[in-house]
Parts: sequence; structure tokens; C-alpha cells
Amino acid sequence: MIETPMLWLVPIAAAVSIFLAFFLRKKVTSAEAGNEDMVRIQGYIKEGASAFIARQYKTLAVFVAFIAVIIWLVYTFNEHAESEGWLMALSYAIGSIASAFAGWVGLQVGVNANSPTAWAAQRGIAPAFNVSFFGGAVMGLLVTGIGLIGIWLLFYITGSPSYILGFSFGASAIALFMKAGGGIYTKTADVGADLVGKLEFNLPEDDSRNPAAVADNVGDNVGDIAGMGSDLLDSYIASLVAAMLLGFSLFNQAANVVQQHAFSSYPLIISAAGLFSSIVGIVIVSKLVKNSPGDALNAGTLVAAILYGVISALFSLLLVVTTPTTPVDLSGRIWLNWLAGVFGVGAGLIIGFTTNYFTDDNQKPTRITAEATQQGHAITILTGFSLGLLSILPTILGIVLAMVVAWFCNGVYGIANAAVGMLAIVGTIVSNDAYGPITDNSRSLAEQGKLSEETIKICDSLDSAGNTAKAVTKGFAIGAAALTVLALLYSYSEEARSIIGGGAISFNLLDAGTMIGMLIGAIIPPVYSAILIRAVQKNAGKMVEEVRRQFTEHPGILEGKEKADYARCVDIATKGALQELTIPAIMSIAAPLITGVLFGVEALGAFLASSIATGFIFGVLFGNAGGTWDNAKKFVEDGNFGGKGSSAHAAAITGDTVGDPFKDTAGPSINTLICVMGLTASMFLVLFTSINGGNGLIQLPDLAAFL
Amino acid sequence: MIETPMLWLVPIAAAVSIFLAFFLRKKVTSAEAGNEDMVRIQGYIKEGASAFIARQYKTLAVFVAFIAVIIWLVYTFNEHAESEGWLMALSYAIGSIASAFAGWVGLQVGVNANSPTAWAAQRGIAPAFNVSFFGGAVMGLLVTGIGLIGIWLLFYITGSPSYILGFSFGASAIALFMKAGGGIYTKTADVGADLVGKLEFNLPEDDSRNPAAVADNVGDNVGDIAGMGSDLLDSYIASLVAAMLLGFSLFNQAANVVQQHAFSSYPLIISAAGLFSSIVGIVIVSKLVKNSPGDALNAGTLVAAILYGVISALFSLLLVVTTPTTPVDLSGRIWLNWLAGVFGVGAGLIIGFTTNYFTDDNQKPTRITAEATQQGHAITILTGFSLGLLSILPTILGIVLAMVVAWFCNGVYGIANAAVGMLAIVGTIVSNDAYGPITDNSRSLAEQGKLSEETIKICDSLDSAGNTAKAVTKGFAIGAAALTVLALLYSYSEEARSIIGGGAISFNLLDAGTMIGMLIGAIIPPVYSAILIRAVQKNAGKMVEEVRRQFTEHPGILEGKEKADYARCVDIATKGALQELTIPAIMSIAAPLITGVLFGVEALGAFLASSIATGFIFGVLFGNAGGTWDNAKKFVEDGNFGGKGSSAHAAAITGDTVGDPFKDTAGPSINTLICVMGLTASMFLVLFTSINGGNGLIQLPDLAAFL
Repeated sequence: MIETPMLWLVPIAAAVSIFLAFFLRKKVTSAEAGNEDMVRIQGYIKEGASAFIARQYKTLAVFVAFIAVIIWLVYTFNEHAESEGWLMALSYAIGSIASAFAGWVGLQVGVNANSPTAWAAQRGIAPAFNVSFFGGAVMGLLVTGIGLIGIWLLFYITGSPSYILGFSFGASAIALFMKAGGGIYTKTADVGADLVGKLEFNLPEDDSRNPAAVADNVGDNVGDIAGMGSDLLDSYIASLVAAMLLGFSLFNQAANVVQQHAFSSYPLIISAAGLFSSIVGIVIVSKLVKNSPGDALNAGTLVAAILYGVISALFSLLLVVTTPTTPVDLSGRIWLNWLAGVFGVGAGLIIGFTTNYFTDDNQKPTRITAEATQQGHAITILTGFSLGLLSILPTILGIVLAMVVAWFCNGVYGIANAAVGMLAIVGTIVSNDAYGPITDNSRSLAEQGKLSEETIKICDSLDSAGNTAKAVTKGFAIGAAALTVLALLYSYSEEARSIIGGGAISFNLLDAGTMIGMLIGAIIPPVYSAILIRAVQKNAGKMVEEVRRQFTEHPGILEGKEKADYARCVDIATKGALQELTIPAIMSIAAPLITGVLFGVEALGAFLASSIATGFIFGVLFGNAGGTWDNAKKFVEDGNFGGKGSSAHAAAITGDTVGDPFKDTAGPSINTLICVMGLTASMFLVLFTSINGGNGLIQLPDLAAFL
Repeated sequence: MIETPMLWLVPIAAAVSIFLAFFLRKKVTSAEAGNEDMVRIQGYIKEGASAFIARQYKTLAVFVAFIAVIIWLVYTFNEHAESEGWLMALSYAIGSIASAFAGWVGLQVGVNANSPTAWAAQRGIAPAFNVSFFGGAVMGLLVTGIGLIGIWLLFYITGSPSYILGFSFGASAIALFMKAGGGIYTKTADVGADLVGKLEFNLPEDDSRNPAAVADNVGDNVGDIAGMGSDLLDSYIASLVAAMLLGFSLFNQAANVVQQHAFSSYPLIISAAGLFSSIVGIVIVSKLVKNSPGDALNAGTLVAAILYGVISALFSLLLVVTTPTTPVDLSGRIWLNWLAGVFGVGAGLIIGFTTNYFTDDNQKPTRITAEATQQGHAITILTGFSLGLLSILPTILGIVLAMVVAWFCNGVYGIANAAVGMLAIVGTIVSNDAYGPITDNSRSLAEQGKLSEETIKICDSLDSAGNTAKAVTKGFAIGAAALTVLALLYSYSEEARSIIGGGAISFNLLDAGTMIGMLIGAIIPPVYSAILIRAVQKNAGKMVEEVRRQFTEHPGILEGKEKADYARCVDIATKGALQELTIPAIMSIAAPLITGVLFGVEALGAFLASSIATGFIFGVLFGNAGGTWDNAKKFVEDGNFGGKGSSAHAAAITGDTVGDPFKDTAGPSINTLICVMGLTASMFLVLFTSINGGNGLIQLPDLAAFL
């Protein structure tokens, strides 16, 4: 195929990244694992995680096969489809497998790193930090490396970005299961462990007598490592697909084939720049850490962002030099693209640090929430909830700023590149995020392995650094998802335009069908969230019963004479999570499908647009309200307003418990939801365009008919 | 002016309605008021209500004058404005005064009817019901009558619906203050009274020793009578304006001037049909009531809806007969309009009864929430919240159904008529709604007047009937607001089209400015809600302090030896409500103004569309979650799951307290918010169109520039 030589940077970056991931994996798995108790509990966690993944992947295999057949059918027997059915189905399957593989390896390393982290904490902060941070980095590097190499290979072999759409759809479907399933799992266990163990029987956090303690630890890993990793991978790939498709079709007319390829390759090239930046960032963080691991993590993110600006400028310069200037000189366009990418990563930082402001317990919002705990349960809820709603305002301004600049740079292609830029440093973001559950687990294992008070304190400080970093990465994740689906929406409209015929597409809200699409799209994220929150509740109820049963039938457990049956709790969380996933998973694909079939291509466009808006609103609300309640509770537990055991503390726990499914189940799952819906729209566009010329089964007369 | 003779039905209906209102007012005020204690407390309530209204109206007078000057300036010195500046400003002022007058009279009757209701309850349900229902009906009949006669007069004098826009904007601005101010007031007092009186000092509900008790009663009146009444009045007028403007401009080309007037008059004519139906409905309800006042109220709504279908068919027939069939025969159009109106009122019923399902304690959702109280505070919150989110789904389907049918009937004009149809029976709806606080107050006065247990029980059953009716009317209010603003959006686009030039307007989400408008519009309702919720909290905090202060400094109050200082609590609620109103009030006008000025006419259209969507979502969520918590608490208090004093009850109270500002402050205020924003857009359209040809100050290049 014809290509720019610059594209070779992509497999090089990916290879370096994957190599480094396996190198760090070796380092983590060869570290000393800890004492007997710790290794035993770690064994349970590993077992639980493997059991969940095994069962999850079995269900997923059936699901992936089913969707692959549908894709094959749609693309083979549809007049509008230009891609080969079997190859599209295959790309889809490969995307699924790649995402599943990355999740599996990351998770394995995560559950292996927890105990060694606790053990290393005996030697101080830095050694312990490095074990856990390297454990997280494996996930970050693998996710990015595998994503990039998969896209590059498909592009290299087929010469067109079309099949990458299938790859992306595959990765997204897995992400939806991993994120929503992991989210239900982790909060089932967490809420279950807290409600009975902590509140009814006064056990301390992470006590090994609590039968749900292992499930809780497993949950942290499947929710935050596998779940968040595949969530970001899915946005990462989707943003690249959108930008490449737009580059491919927009420069179709204006440029020759070499130039066209330069523009469809550009997003990949700046992603390679981002990957190199992330690698350097990861190395720097591990050198930087001394006493304040939280600052080191955030400094790493900043360094990676700045480096991204520099390296992508260098790569852009090289691309300008190597791209022919005939028939038109596109070098100005390349530089504008670079600017859009830089503003993208800037917006990511704004959103990330806004999230941090609203959830950090040194800042005003969390302090206000903490103060409100003195006025009881209801006021605590109202305070956190209303602050969460308020936090939407600055966050959306970050998105709007990036959109305006990117649009001035290069229109829809500029916006797509802003999304790519924001996600370019995803290696760093995922590393920081996966670091969290490792340290969380390590604290628990240090407790259960009866390590010294000082060691536990070090684990504590590592854990709280994880929470700080998590605030920033969550903001990043939601901003990236919004911009990515926006880019997907534009590539969807471009494809529709090319199938239906020039200049025909608009998402005009004055047409009734489009308005209806907008109304339906708007309600999907809140309804989806409601289903997930109810799932956690139902499941947590079962967990509560099981824990109570064990304590009642085996009183020896509470006295420490009998072993708690961890496996049954793990089993309840696993089964429940998979069972409760069915409706949300079907909904995420069925809602855009039904809208597209009934009301047509334009209605579906408006559906996507409004789902971005409300998805963003509820995502930010859930994340920030949940975060502020969580940290307000910690602030109270640090001895403020009466400290542990006070009535303020009881109210703070209520806030935290309400916030749990908000911030760890519903909120982050919305990112994957809107991404899956955006990709479903693009994947099945050929189907919608073949129904009444893209107008859908219910053909509402258009506005002009009444004038 | 040229007109259809049918239009004379409008002043006749309005006159009958206003006459009946004053007749009922006489009946209520001449009823026996009760014993000395009751009259004394009633005196405090009257005083408190008058003090609030007086101070509120003083602030409002300044605000109205300020906006009137701006309107005068914009319409006088703008090249695009065809209306006379002074007349538009005058219409605006008249709209404000009319709305303020209706609110004031309704409130006066309401605070006069409470004690007589309690006194009449000694003679049984029916007499007591009639006093309170007639008290509410005064508000219902006045609001509708004044609204209709104002519109008719302006139309009659000026011959064009344009000035009614000013009238509507005036009424809406008042509604925003009344609803949001009343909402903050009522929950400040309610939460304040509950938190200290009930929870800290174990006083029963409505105990006269509670210094916040009077403020609580005043709050019910200013929030639910004056607030809800002006909220519905504002939707009512706005729906009429939108439909009349659309009728005027759409039939501009196709018909002669008589036909054109027939179509701009049609919405007014079916509103007259609705008013006659409401009057009959009100009479029927007062005859129907025997033992089940709740059923009587809902039966009245159904009867009014059915009668509306019949009477509006009759009026349509008369209009068909009296309208010339040249140059084109428009009788088919008239019948389709009739159908759209009928589907509008049908959708209102669907939404109303869905709301009832989600909040009635005989139905599953509230039972589930009540059961959840056994699992503590957090699970109670999560359950009510997620059920509230789920209730959005059936509710939006009601709107979508009405939209689809109305669009098939007559496009945008059909949708506007569906909104008019839904609001045609607003007389009944407001009557039922205003009935609520009267009976709520009467229960409190029966308690304080030491009437017999049996009498209090009767007052209780009247009160709970009010809650049932309230669920239906709230659903109606939010559905009507959504459809109305949709109609306003269409009339806005029609006006913009006529100013900027034929066929030029589309709200195409593929243009960056429009997309940005959509994103900004989407966040306004949640951010606005957050500000109101925080306002309630801040103010309730002050109230709590005052109540505590009185109990501490005057221990005699608790023993019943000293009188509580009600006036100070009333004062805190009054001052706080007005103070906290400033930011939301500015926001509701500034947000569309800034969007229109910066990003132009099309961006503002998308802004309105998405504000309808998220306004609807949050409105339904707040209303239904709040309602289900409220009734779950009542269900627990009826002796279920441990009854009063149990831990389930404590959790139920938390739910109810969180729900209070949700359902009585934020939720219903959103209706007024989206209405005011829609009217602001239309009022200042001439300003936006004169900035860069309607493209705004920040002119984003359009999509085609990059293709």
C-alpha cells in the first residue's frame, strides 16, 4: 500500500511499549511476595479474579460470536456495504480478543503486585511505590501498545481505515462488559462488606474475618484495572478510528492518494508521539517519587502532556517534510492539526484538575460536604449531590474551549484530532489508574499479614495517592469519551453523506424525527445508570444475606477461630454481575439500532449528540459527587467533626455508600455506553441507509411539507 | 380588526370563569372560620404570606421595570424589530401585573380557606372538601380567566399575536420568581421545622410550640398555590403565544387574511373549550365527593379532559362552518388540529398517571422504596433515586407519542396545538393543585385548634387526597412545559426564518456553534437545580439556628408556657428566599442571551432543544424520586417495617428530607426555567439577528468550509 514512511514510527512505539510492559511484568512478578498469611490471601484474590474473568470471557465469547455473525450478514448482504463481510467480522473479533487479552494480562499483573507492594513497604515509600506503579504501568503500556499495533496492522494490510471500525467496535463491546460488569462486581462486594461487616458487626476495614473481604479486593482489581483499562482503550481506539476515517474521506477530493494517506495516518503518528511521551513519563515518575507519591503521579501526567506537545511537533515537522506539496500544499493543515491535538490534551488536564478540585479534601467542595455531615444524613446527600451538579459547569467549559479551537483549526477533523491528542497520553493515565487498586489491596494485605503499624501507614499513603490520581484520570476518561463520540458522530455523518449522496446530511432539530431522536438519546444514559445502580443494590442485598448467614451459622468466624468462606461471596459477586449485565448490554446496542431503524440516519445522529450531552452531565455528576462523599468521609475519619464513631461519621458513611455505585459503577460505565452507541451507529449505518433511503420505517413528513 | 365570530367565545369563557372565581371566593371567605386558637394561628399565616408577597412584589417591581426598559430599547432601536417598542414593553408589564394579581388573589383565598376547612371537617368530609376545593378553584379559574382575557384583548386591539409574546414573557418572569422563590421559602421552613423540631426535640408534626410551624404553613401556600399557579399560567400563555404565532405565519402565504386569522385564533378557541370543560369539571367534582376525595379530584380531571374533546370538536365544527373555503379549503386542517389537541391532553393524562404510579404508596415503586428503608439511609436514597431515573422512560414515551401524532396532523403547528390541548384544562389542574396546601394547612390548624381526633382524621384524608392529585398535576405541569417550549422553539425558528430570509434556518448539530449551543443548553437545568438546592440548604441552616436559639433562650416555649416567635422564622424564610433568587433569576435570562449573542440564532435553537431534554429528565427525576420518598415515609409511618420511631423510619425521613428540595424546589422550578429561556430567545431574537446576520460574535466557520 501507499503510505508515508512516518507511519513506521507507530509499530516501533508499540513494540517498545509492549516490550517495556513485559519487562516491568517480570520485575513485579519476581519481587518478594510477603509472608505466609499474605500469600494465602493473595492466592484467594488471584483465584477470585481468575474465576470472574473466566466466567466473564465465556459469556463474552458467545456474545462476540453472535455479533460477528450479524456483522458478517449485514456487510455481506447489504447493497451499500463496500467492506468485505468476513473481513469486517474478523476485525471485530480481533478487536475483542485484543481488548480481552490486554485486560487479562493487566489484571494478572495487578493481582500479583499487591502483596509484594505491601512487603516492599517495609523498606520505605519508594520501593513500595515502584512495585505498585510498575504493576499499573504494565496495564497502561499493554493497552496502548496493543491498541496501536492492532490498528496499524489492519491499516497496513487493508490500506483503508474502514476495517478499524470493526476492530474498535470489538474492543468497545468488551469494554462495556468489563466496565459495567466490573463496576457491579466491585460495588456489590464493597457495599456488602461494609453494610454487614463494618456497620452491623463493627469489624475494621479489610478485616480477614469478613467473608466479603476477598470479594472486595477482587472487585477493586476487576473494576479499576480491567474495567478502567478497557474503558480507556476503547475510547483510545475509537478516537483514532474517527480521526482516520475523517482524514481519509475529507482529503479524498482535495489531495492525491499520498496526501490522503498522510492525513489518515496523522492521528496514528501523533499517538505514537503520545506513547513515547507516556513511556518517558512513566520512567520519570518512578525516579521522582520520594515522599509524595500523589504529586509524583500528577507530575508524571503533566510531564507526559508537555512531552507530547514537543514530540508531536517534531513528528509533525517530519511529516511536513516527507509529504509532497502537490496538488495542494497541506503543511498548514498539519500544523493546525498539531494545535488541535495540543488543545485536546490541555482540555483533558483542565477537566482532570477540575475533578481533582471538586473531590480533594484540601479543597472547598469536599470541606463543605464534610461540614454538612454534622447536619445529618439528608443534608450530607443534598450537599454532595448539588456540588456534583455544579461541577458540570467548569468541566463542560473545558470541552467547549477545546471544541472551539479545534474547529477553527480544522473543523470536524480538528475535533477528532483534539480527541486523539487528549487520549495520546493514555499510557500514563491507565498506569496511574491501575496503580490505585494495587495499593488499595496492598494496604489490606499488610493488615492481614500483620505487618508493622509503620508499614501499614506507608501503604495508606500510597493508597491515598492512588485516590488523588484517580480523580484526575476519571476526569480525563469522561472528557475523552465525550470528545471521542463527538468525533465518531462526525465520521458517522461523513460516511452517511458519502452513501446517501453529497451534502444531504444534517441533524436538523427542526425536523420532528431528529427532535425525537434527540429526546430518546438524552434519556439513555440516565436510564442505563438507573439499571446499573439497581443491579448493585440487588446484588449487594444477596451479599449481605450471605455474610449474615456465615456469621450466624458459624459464630467461630467472628472470634477468629473459624475460617470465613470467601469463595461463596466471590461466587455471588461473579454470578450477579454477569446476570445483571444482560439488560444494559442489550440496551447499549439496541437503543441506537431501534432509533436508526425507526427514525432514520438523521434522528440517530441527534440521538448520539444528546447522549453525549446527558452522558457527560451524569458522568461528571456521579463521579464528582461520589468522589466528594468518599473524601469527606475520609476527612471525618481523620478526626474532624467528631471523627470515627460520631454521628457525623455515620452521615459521612451514608454519603460514601450512596456515592459508591455512583462513582464506580454508573459514572464510568457511561463512558463506555456512549462509545458503544457511537460505534453501533457507524457499524450499522449501511443498514439504516438501506431503509427508505435512510429515513427509517416511521417517515415523518419534513418541516417544509407544512410551510 | 378582521376576525372570526368564534373568537367571541373567548371573552365569554373568561368572564364566566372570573365571575365564578369571585363567587366561590365569597363562599369561602364567608364560611365560619373556626375557634379562637385557629383564627389566631391563621392570622399568623395570613400575615406571613402577605409579608412575603409584599416584599417579593417590591423586588419584582424593580426587576419588571428594568426589563421593560430593555425591551423598549431593543424594540425601538433595532432595525429588525417590527413591533412598537413602547407597546411591547407595555404588554410585558401588563403580563407581569396580570400574573402577579392572579397569584395574589389566589394566595389570599388559599390562606383564608384553611381554617374554615378544618372547622367544616367537624361536619364530615363533603362540607370540608368543598370549602378547600372551592378555595383552590378560585386560583384555577382566575389564572385561566385572566390569562385568556389578557391574550384576547391584546389580540383584539393589535390584530397580531406579536405583542402577546411580551405579555407571556411578563407572566413568565413573575412565575420564575414565584415558583423558585416560593420553592426555596417552603423548603427552608419545612426542612428547618423538621430537622430541629421533629428530629432533635421530638415534637409532633405541626406542633404549635415549633417556632418554624407558621413559616412551614406559609411556605405551603406561597410554594404550591402562588408558585404552581403562576408556573402553569406561564406555560398556558406561552403555549397559546407559540401556537398563535405559528398559525399566523404558517398560513400567511396559503390563505387569505380571514383564514389566517382563523388559524391564529384557533388555539384561543380551543382554550375557551377547555375552560368551559374545566368549569363543568369543577362543578362535578364538588358534587361527586362522598368518601374518597382523591378519586373525586382525579375523576374531575378525567371528566374535564373528555369534555374538552367534545366541546372543542363542537367549536371546531362551528369554525369550519364560519370560515370561508377560499382561496383554499382549510377545514381538513382544522380537524387535524383538533386531533392534535386531543392527543395533547391524552399525553398529559399518560404522564400524569405515570407520575401517580411511581409515587403512589399502593404501587410497586413506592413499596420497593419503603422496603429499602429497612436497609438503612444509603439504600433508601439509592432506591428512590434510581426509580426516579427509571420513571423518565415511560414519561418521555408519552411526549414522543403526542409529538409523532401531532406532527403527522399539522407539523410544528400541530405540536403547538398539542401543547395548547394539554394545557386547555389547566383550570382543573390548578384547582386540584391549590387544593393541596389548603388541606395541608387545615390539618395543622385542626391540630392547633385542638379539634377532635375524628376531625383531624378527616383533615388527614383530605390532605392525602391532595397528595394524590398533586402527583398527577405535577406530571401534567412538566409535560406541558416540555411541549410548550418545543412549540416556542418552532415559533422562534419561524420568526428567525422570516427575519433572516426564506428557508435559511436549521438547527444542524453538525455545525460546531449549534453543537456548542446544545451542550451549554443541556447543562443549564442541572446547574440551576443545584443552585436552588444549595439555596434551600443554606437558608434551612439559618432556620435551624433560629429555632435552636429560641428553644435554648426560652425553654418555656417547649413546655408550652411561652409563645414561640413565629415572625422571626417567617422573616428568615422570606429574606433568604429573595436573596438566594438573584443568581438563578439572572441565569435564566442571561444564559440564552449570552448564547444567542456569542454563537447566534441557530446555536440558541439547539440550546433550547437540549434544555427541554435535560429539563424534562431532571424535572421528572426530582419530582418522582421526591414523591416516592415522601410516600414511602408515610407508608412506614402507617406502621409498616417497624413504623414510627424505628430505624426504617429514620431512613425514610432521610429520604423524605432529600426529596423535599428535589420535588418542591428544584423540580417544578425547571418548568418555569425552560419556559423563561424559550421566551427570552423569542423576545430578543431581533437582537441576535442583527449581530453578524444571526451568526453571533464568535463566528465559527461552517462545516462546508472544511470539505
